[in-house]
Amino acid sequence: MNFDFYMPVRVVSGRTALADSAAQLKKLGDSCMVVTGKRSAKASGALDDLTEVLRREKISCTVYGGITENPLLSSCEEAAALAAEKKAAFVVGIGGGSPLDAAKAIAALAANPGLDREGFFKKAWKNPPLPIVLIGTTSGTGSEVSPTSVLTVDSVKKSVSGPELYASLAIANPAYTGTMSYNTTVSTGLDAFCHAVEGYFSPACDDITGYLAEKAMPMVYRGLKMMRPEMEMTPAFREQMYYGSLWAGLVLNAHGTSFPHPYGYVLTENHGIPHGKACAVFLPALLLHCAQYAPEKMERFLRVLDTDLPAVNQLLDSLSGVERISMTKEEIQSYRKRFTGLKHYANTPGAYSEEQGLRLFETLFLK
Amino acid sequence: MNFDFYMPVRVVSGRTALADSAAQLKKLGDSCMVVTGKRSAKASGALDDLTEVLRREKISCTVYGGITENPLLSSCEEAAALAAEKKAAFVVGIGGGSPLDAAKAIAALAANPGLDREGFFKKAWKNPPLPIVLIGTTSGTGSEVSPTSVLTVDSVKKSVSGPELYASLAIANPAYTGTMSYNTTVSTGLDAFCHAVEGYFSPACDDITGYLAEKAMPMVYRGLKMMRPEMEMTPAFREQMYYGSLWAGLVLNAHGTSFPHPYGYVLTENHGIPHGKACAVFLPALLLHCAQYAPEKMERFLRVLDTDLPAVNQLLDSLSGVERISMTKEEIQSYRKRFTGLKHYANTPGAYSEEQGLRLFETLFLK
Repeated sequence: MNFDFYMPVRVVSGRTALADSAAQLKKLGDSCMVVTGKRSAKASGALDDLTEVLRREKISCTVYGGITENPLLSSCEEAAALAAEKKAAFVVGIGGGSPLDAAKAIAALAANPGLDREGFFKKAWKNPPLPIVLIGTTSGTGSEVSPTSVLTVDSVKKSVSGPELYASLAIANPAYTGTMSYNTTVSTGLDAFCHAVEGYFSPACDDITGYLAEKAMPMVYRGLKMMRPEMEMTPAFREQMYYGSLWAGLVLNAHGTSFPHPYGYVLTENHGIPHGKACAVFLPALLLHCAQYAPEKMERFLRVLDTDLPAVNQLLDSLSGVERISMTKEEIQSYRKRFTGLKHYANTPGAYSEEQGLRLFETLFLK
Repeated sequence: MNFDFYMPVRVVSGRTALADSAAQLKKLGDSCMVVTGKRSAKASGALDDLTEVLRREKISCTVYGGITENPLLSSCEEAAALAAEKKAAFVVGIGGGSPLDAAKAIAALAANPGLDREGFFKKAWKNPPLPIVLIGTTSGTGSEVSPTSVLTVDSVKKSVSGPELYASLAIANPAYTGTMSYNTTVSTGLDAFCHAVEGYFSPACDDITGYLAEKAMPMVYRGLKMMRPEMEMTPAFREQMYYGSLWAGLVLNAHGTSFPHPYGYVLTENHGIPHGKACAVFLPALLLHCAQYAPEKMERFLRVLDTDLPAVNQLLDSLSGVERISMTKEEIQSYRKRFTGLKHYANTPGAYSEEQGLRLFETLFLK
């Protein structure tokens, strides 16, 4: 039993979360930079709601809309230069994981002009990042409640993490996930499920995080079981998926991830599979591994989900679409170096290794 | 459903929590004031462990040991003057609720020399409080994870609360509760149970806090059921009671308390009943009220505790010792003004009133 806990983000949730946060925003300063992707910030209504609150509070704002999926460090550098030029006092990210992760990086870069990339990833920061505000529009990332930013540099995903990167404020309005497409809803839901499950089976999982995961997992799993392309995604469904992803985010925040995440990065980078689906491809293998090395926990996991392992795996397979991917032996071997020494292996019961990973890739993708 | 959450304290728990926190302490500065009561800081070993870590980290420290049960604002003022004189960079409280609450007040007063009492309670603070570190030695207060300080001024309990009063760091080592007497264990356990139950039945209780309370309540209740003067209080029992009190503290942090708390203050001030027992005296009345105004929640509460209402009430009565107290009609009427307009009434399902409170006092104490 223990009670280790650190998640200092103030989360304000519900349909009026942005308006309810006006005074908190004003406390952060009189000017901000708003970071978005192409579509969801506008389509969800979040950007309009924010603009209205900023106007009322007399907070000036500059919008940077150039964040793409799997956000580029170079875009963050561009946005940070603009934020510094405009003397932004804080940074607001609106979107899925990409703009939220980008906002964290931009806040750090804007506060440390002239910092090179190595210094950025080593957190050789002279000044703390600008305060960060995050407004989620997808239900998967957990970025709102975690101190991690995953960026793409030279076509490879790299992450930076630390307590300085927690948001001051997360505005959690499930209505902003209401315009998410079916496919994004599936993929982000799978991401949330991976966060909860990978953390739940982490050897570091304890009394407190186990309890949080046992809240997150059935919320998200019940939603995943309802997924059909023709389904009506009601506000209640959106709410369940979004808050489920935040509960899962608390687990992610405490324990990080296991091997499905770094393996998934490869599918995203080289096969264009969206992040959540890409991680979920490897979740059945993790579950099989856990059944062997953490059988009692597995029993509890299945009891919490009220199901059996074949049913979970079938659902994951049907939603993640593993059958679309094929690789040559050479491609698989080319990942050896990348799979060596991953810190995620120690975060897996009974550990894991690059050899096991390469064999898993052969089983799944060698056609 | 919602996901409002704010509890920014970094909680480091377990048997090596203090040593594990050395680097965090050093970040707070090179000098500190340590605030304790008479006994537990020393007897528990916490003060010695702290002194050792401070020595190794070259952090100078001044100990103020003058905090009594139901801490006096005047003692806090005295300690704050000393902290300012010694240029303490942060304040460490070690003890039960009294030294922890006092540490919060001292941190605010030391940062704002010359502030009068009215200004203190109105939080007319020019400077933020010094960083606060809390080390609990009892399993009840929840002060470690809440932003409230309850002080005694002119023999009356007054509280001050706000996000500035959160600790930077809480060091949660259940071993430090190991020298607590049986009576203190009972009283602080009752306090924790009240925090969880009063918050659970708060009309503001939601998805997230309900879940936290449903973790806290059975942990503490199972412990209370084991209470016998001749019992052996094992490390596992101490751990369950202490971490249970922290879970309950998360509920307290979110929703504050209902009428048992302010009514309990009266028993503490005028009849010398320890705080936890004093609050628990009124919990059966709250539960009866809840059974009427929140019957479904009551059903769930009993299911979570795996018991029935008479059993809960009997346990509370036997542990709180209500039969010792007797009051005259005049004494009870003298509390009318004090019971009028309490904010706690709105934090009770179906609300509550001073008339109901005065009748309750007559039923319980008019002999």
